[in-house]
This record gives sequence, C-alpha cells and structure tokens, in this order.
Amino acid sequence: MKKDLSAEIRFGMTKKRHAETLEKAIREKKADKDFIPLCNFVKKTKNFFTSSCCSGRILLLKLEKGESKKDASFHKKWHNPVKAREVWNELEKKTSGTLWLKMEPLILHIGTNTLENANKLLDAMKQAGVKRGGLIVAKPGKFLFELEGSQRIALPVKQGDKILVEKTYLEFVVKNANEKMGKNRLALKRLEKTLKKVLS
Amino acid sequence: MKKDLSAEIRFGMTKKRHAETLEKAIREKKADKDFIPLCNFVKKTKNFFTSSCCSGRILLLKLEKGESKKDASFHKKWHNPVKAREVWNELEKKTSGTLWLKMEPLILHIGTNTLENANKLLDAMKQAGVKRGGLIVAKPGKFLFELEGSQRIALPVKQGDKILVEKTYLEFVVKNANEKMGKNRLALKRLEKTLKKVLS
Repeated sequence: MKKDLSAEIRFGMTKKRHAETLEKAIREKKADKDFIPLCNFVKKTKNFFTSSCCSGRILLLKLEKGESKKDASFHKKWHNPVKAREVWNELEKKTSGTLWLKMEPLILHIGTNTLENANKLLDAMKQAGVKRGGLIVAKPGKFLFELEGSQRIALPVKQGDKILVEKTYLEFVVKNANEKMGKNRLALKRLEKTLKKVLS
Repeated sequence: MKKDLSAEIRFGMTKKRHAETLEKAIREKKADKDFIPLCNFVKKTKNFFTSSCCSGRILLLKLEKGESKKDASFHKKWHNPVKAREVWNELEKKTSGTLWLKMEPLILHIGTNTLENANKLLDAMKQAGVKRGGLIVAKPGKFLFELEGSQRIALPVKQGDKILVEKTYLEFVVKNANEKMGKNRLALKRLEKTLKKVLS
C-alpha cells in the first residue's frame, strides 16, 4: 500500500507534541503517578502516544439546581484512598446545590496511526479484561482510543445545608470507594502489562 | 476500490440475522419499547444494523463477598420510573450479600460495514451530545459501535440483613434516579433524531 507521507509526518508531530506535554507534566509533578510507567512505555513505541489519563479518583461534585453536568464543579477530589473523616469534614463546610460523592474509574486515551495499530489497542483492552472502551476517532492516519474502567460509585450526600447520609453510612461507602480504588489500580497494572506485550 | 464480495455477503447475512432477532423480540414484546423506533429505522438502512440496546434501567444488584462483578446477580430491575415504596419493599425481603441500588444509562450497539460508515456513527454520537462511545470492533467489513449514556447512580443500600440507608434518603435517591431515567429518555430521542439525519 502506498504510504501517505504527509499523514505520517503529521502523526510524528502529534506524537512528539504529546511526548513533550507528558515530560513537562512529569517534571512539574502534575502527571498521574500511577500512570507514569504506562505512559513512558507508550512514549517509547513507534506508533502510539498517550494523550490523557487518570488512574481513578474519589470526588465530591457540586451540582446546582437542574443538575446538568455543565453546571457541575469539583468541590474536592482525591486521587488516593481517603479517610471518611476527611470527606465528612468537607460535607460540614458551607456549600450550595447538591453534593455527589463519586468514585470514578481509570480513563486513558491512546493515539495511533493506522487501523491495524488501533486494533492492537482493542485487543489489549480485551486481554486486560477492561470492558468499556473503543475508538472515538477513526480517520485515515489518525486513530484515538479511549478506555475506561468499570469501578463506580455515585450518590447524593448533601443538598443545600442538609447532609443526607449518616456518618456510619458515609464510612461504609468511603471504605468501599477505597477498595474500588485498589481494584482500579490492579486493573491499571494488568493493562500496563498487556500493553507492553501487545504494543512491543 | 475493489469490493470484497465475500465480506459484503457476510455483512448482508449478519444484518439479516439481526433484523430477524429484532422482529422476533418485538413480536414477543421482549424488545425495549423506547428503542423500537430507532431500531426499526436502523433496520431499514442499507449499511447498518442494531445488535443490542437498553434504554436505561434502575436495578438492585446483589454482590456476594469480594464484590467481583462475576458474582453479581440482579435482585430486581425496572425499565421505567419506580416508586420508592417498591424499592423499599425489595430491601425488606430476605437477601444475602450486598445490595447495590443502581441507575444505568442507555446502551446501544450498531454494526456497519465500512470505516466510512462507522465514522457516521461517531459523528452522530457527537452531534447528539452523547459523551461515551466508540468502535469496539474495527475490522475490514465488520465494525461495531457501542454507545453509552452518562446518567448514573450507584450506591450500596443493604448488607446482609441490614438496610444501610434511611427511608427518606432512599426516597430522595429514587426520585433522582427517576429524573435521570427521564433525562436518559430525552438523550435517546435526540440520538434517534440525529441518526435519522446522519444515516439516511
């Protein structure tokens, strides 16, 4: 097959740009620590780059009336297991709207250059046992793969001035959220291992 | 471009098989009512078929110790808004393990035959404002698109014999879940309209 040189050059430039963004984030300690080994591995491949990632988080999301996600803002987020005490303290602060406690799973974007390489990403996802993900951009020369874990919690915990849940229940949920963060981390490790095998 | 006739024949057979499955489901009243207009429209196109769909649901999921999804089973599910009373009654029944109350968003799978047509599905998703979805199979002659809404609730409500939440809180959450079912239905209507425009 005849190669489209301009597409190849464009891909090379995009890959380089994302490598620089990653290096800067690592230097400035803004990169997601748990994802660094995976991102660094992908950076070294010829045909793939990571564009964004989050290894999972626990958060308090503030939703104003109507609850459109557009109005949502973070009240607080944690990228590591959190103490129920800390979450409760946040609930006791003055807030407005509805606060949701959420545990969100890992999310990862990987770019590549051909359909064949994009299929390697889909294969890796299946092999690693990750259930949600797919190609969200699939144009000649430009493929973007998105993957998402499946560990989730989402519940309203405060409305206006009123905390909606009891402290013991919040402790139970936070313990569960922390366990899900752990499972999420294991899924990330499995994914890293699989990508190293499939993309090498 | 030279056409791969055998791939075309295979696609035609797959499309026909899914049309028959859909017709049977409608006949036997097993099809998701809210999705029927969309599925019937897709069935009539030349290059697309729906393979599975769910317009969203509220459910009680039972997880045994360890909480792997493999061990999960439905305690009860509702495809329409539900009364908090009904959910509470389910909690009062004898159950084991942990019960999670969940609201899950719409999910849809559409198959097609070429990368170009697969891109129409990605475009429709963006146009309809649906944020999660992508191509989960992308082989020459065989593309499968998966789309998922973003309205979600997930919280533990009972462990062993112990109901973990108060009745008033459950009422608040169920009201919220019902509202999300409504938003979900609107998203489905938007999607249907967009697909009719993009795939015609």
